[in-house]
Amino acid sequence: MTQQFEITLPKQKRGYHLITSLVEKELKNLPKNGIINIFVKHTSAGITINENADPSVRVDFENIINNIVPENQPYYTHTFEGSDDMPAHIKTSLIGHSITIPISNHRLNLGTWQGIYFCEFRNYGGNRKLVVSIIS
Amino acid sequence: MTQQFEITLPKQKRGYHLITSLVEKELKNLPKNGIINIFVKHTSAGITINENADPSVRVDFENIINNIVPENQPYYTHTFEGSDDMPAHIKTSLIGHSITIPISNHRLNLGTWQGIYFCEFRNYGGNRKLVVSIIS
Amino acid sequence: MTQQFEITLPKQKRGYHLITSLVEKELKNLPKNGIINIFVKHTSAGITINENADPSVRVDFENIINNIVPENQPYYTHTFEGSDDMPAHIKTSLIGHSITIPISNHRLNLGTWQGIYFCEFRNYGGNRKLVVSIIS
Repeated sequence: MTQQFEITLPKQKRGYHLITSLVEKELKNLPKNGIINIFVKHTSAGITINENADPSVRVDFENIINNIVPENQPYYTHTFEGSDDMPAHIKTSLIGHSITIPISNHRLNLGTWQGIYFCEFRNYGGNRKLVVSIIS
Repeated sequence: MTQQFEITLPKQKRGYHLITSLVEKELKNLPKNGIINIFVKHTSAGITINENADPSVRVDFENIINNIVPENQPYYTHTFEGSDDMPAHIKTSLIGHSITIPISNHRLNLGTWQGIYFCEFRNYGGNRKLVVSIIS
Repeated sequence: MTQQFEITLPKQKRGYHLITSLVEKELKNLPKNGIINIFVKHTSAGITINENADPSVRVDFENIINNIVPENQPYYTHTFEGSDDMPAHIKTSLIGHSITIPISNHRLNLGTWQGIYFCEFRNYGGNRKLVVSIIS
């Protein structure tokens, strides 16, 4: 059995944003057991799970991933949408466009330190759409 | 309820190949809502979702990911299958071996600019097998 | 229909560990067709699928991924848990916190060379918990 709905995230600045509470607020009548898939409908924003406590982790995420996929390299050819665009595409495929989390006892079965990160890779990304699918 | 089948991709050259239409042609009687998982049965080829429009994105993918995981580094030990082999293993685990996409109203619920990329990381990869699972 | 259970992995040293047999030993009464999701409940350990044969692949994984995400960079700010901590967070999001594998004819439908890697990114990671969800 599948429940499914969309969440529209308001425009957020470039970086890694903890959205666990925002997502959990939308979850009603979760099944006893199952899985949830959260899918980002864009090619320059991603989603992942990482530490929900110290905000310095999210600051370092931005800098480290920028170092792995730098802007303005001379061999880039897809450049007409700005220097942040092609790196945003690569980051999306490295970090991933969707996450799957177990549902246990009617709740997301995340570890103590796990939170959901929405990853905005564009400087000005606009609204972003997520599709939530609950399978049981 | 699960539908499941295999797709065999013909030999393709190293690089990133848009296979959305090829996959959609195989999808019959999709459920109203659900998820689809597409799984690559190999350790040197991956699958991801990215821009379906400008082919320059896929050219830059090849060059940028090659820069992140270069060939012929002096400390590599797994080298007997060629200089492209060990980087292909790493790329597979960075990009991923499977994707999950929501099914909504009997169709893949991809964003406007999203397409499915099959990622051939070997110079001569041969035929490749995908397993498609449809869950509703 | 969902089956679900946890596996606790004993403390393992930093690196990439083949856990296919360990996982398969826990799988009883798999459905004819479906998918399995294996989810790591931590933010400094990951899971992926890669070559199950030559152990040199796993040695090179450790060294190549360390090169992509080096320790002790001057701009890191999240450093109080040790030099291996922040890189472990990044590696987890690059490699991924969960894998999904098709189940076909009551068995994991892995390719000939595919095995499940548990990826311990901390020097001293302790016990690790996995959640296994079987959907059919």
